Amino acid sequence: MTINYPNGQAFALNRWENSHSSTKSVSFSNRGMTLEDEINKSNQYYLANGIAVIHKKPTPIQIVSVDYPRRSAAKIKEAYFQRASTTDYNGVYQGHYIDFDAKETQNKTSFPLQNFHEHQIEHMRQCLKQQGICFAIIKFVSDQAIFVLKASDLISAWDAQFDGGRKSIPRKEIEAKAYQIDYRINPLVPYLDAVDQIIH
Amino acid sequence: MTINYPNGQAFALNRWENSHSSTKSVSFSNRGMTLEDEINKSNQYYLANGIAVIHKKPTPIQIVSVDYPRRSAAKIKEAYFQRASTTDYNGVYQGHYIDFDAKETQNKTSFPLQNFHEHQIEHMRQCLKQQGICFAIIKFVSDQAIFVLKASDLISAWDAQFDGGRKSIPRKEIEAKAYQIDYRINPLVPYLDAVDQIIH
Repeated sequence: MTINYPNGQAFALNRWENSHSSTKSVSFSNRGMTLEDEINKSNQYYLANGIAVIHKKPTPIQIVSVDYPRRSAAKIKEAYFQRASTTDYNGVYQGHYIDFDAKETQNKTSFPLQNFHEHQIEHMRQCLKQQGICFAIIKFVSDQAIFVLKASDLISAWDAQFDGGRKSIPRKEIEAKAYQIDYRINPLVPYLDAVDQIIH
Repeated sequence: MTINYPNGQAFALNRWENSHSSTKSVSFSNRGMTLEDEINKSNQYYLANGIAVIHKKPTPIQIVSVDYPRRSAAKIKEAYFQRASTTDYNGVYQGHYIDFDAKETQNKTSFPLQNFHEHQIEHMRQCLKQQGICFAIIKFVSDQAIFVLKASDLISAWDAQFDGGRKSIPRKEIEAKAYQIDYRINPLVPYLDAVDQIIH
């Protein structure tokens, strides 16, 4: 019997050690969602229930050429992806400014820092100075483990790599420092539970 | 002698009643900036000086077709503009979530509410419930007058139009309720001065 996580991904038996193996398999249409999809879905839930207003920013695009045909929508004929100057998600939750990025890795034992760019770390530094709540949502795809890592911890690891430190954060360190988020039905990724802990 | 505002636009003598007519004309390369340009420039100043972290969100684009040529950047060949589901600007300022939209009008005596879309008003309502600081920056292009209008005032006018009210906000009402922002050199549009008043 195949058991799936609420996001439709295959269930890793080693994590729950068979304790849930009698759970009925539920069919989800969102099988194979990316972390981004999962967070967007969670944000929709938070928004619809008046819990928080958090959106993913659109991908920045440099538009080179646009066609304006008669009686129809403007058609972009040539454009290129641009590197974002901030993190991907931000919004407001109970008066707090929320700002984060979401990254998944296939790596099993550590999270490679190259998943982030210097400007994203810089943006987090700036937001922290303005008393924003900043963090990274990190997903280990192999066993579907999701963590909320405070920006201050991420920045420490980031800075250390230029001072002879590791180019990745060991999973054990993430398990020790970050908040692990278990999948739920609604919201799929209840990351605001971790935010509550960061705030209080 | 031509006197220009710091944004490079022609100086409307009737506003300052000739009191500044001895001011030397200064050449600015940003002649003819849109309100968006002016606010982006102001945000750059706020960011560079550690005052606030506020960015314009990228324009949402629906991508239909992308070409991946060898050894060069992915080229978007077909895409369309999408309607934004939020306001254009947000960020953090001294622990406060800041959220606003910027609109300019050629109209001289009132600000037409059709400059806003229902979903933007809805977004402001949601952010207010989360204790965000929400407002609109409104510019009357004819005399370069810029106002910061609280979202609560905008929403009142918006709702009233469906209850027999006007389809626009009279300029006199804006002058009475909103905070007028005078152009400065840095930042060009010091709208956080108004935000300070909204907060305190």
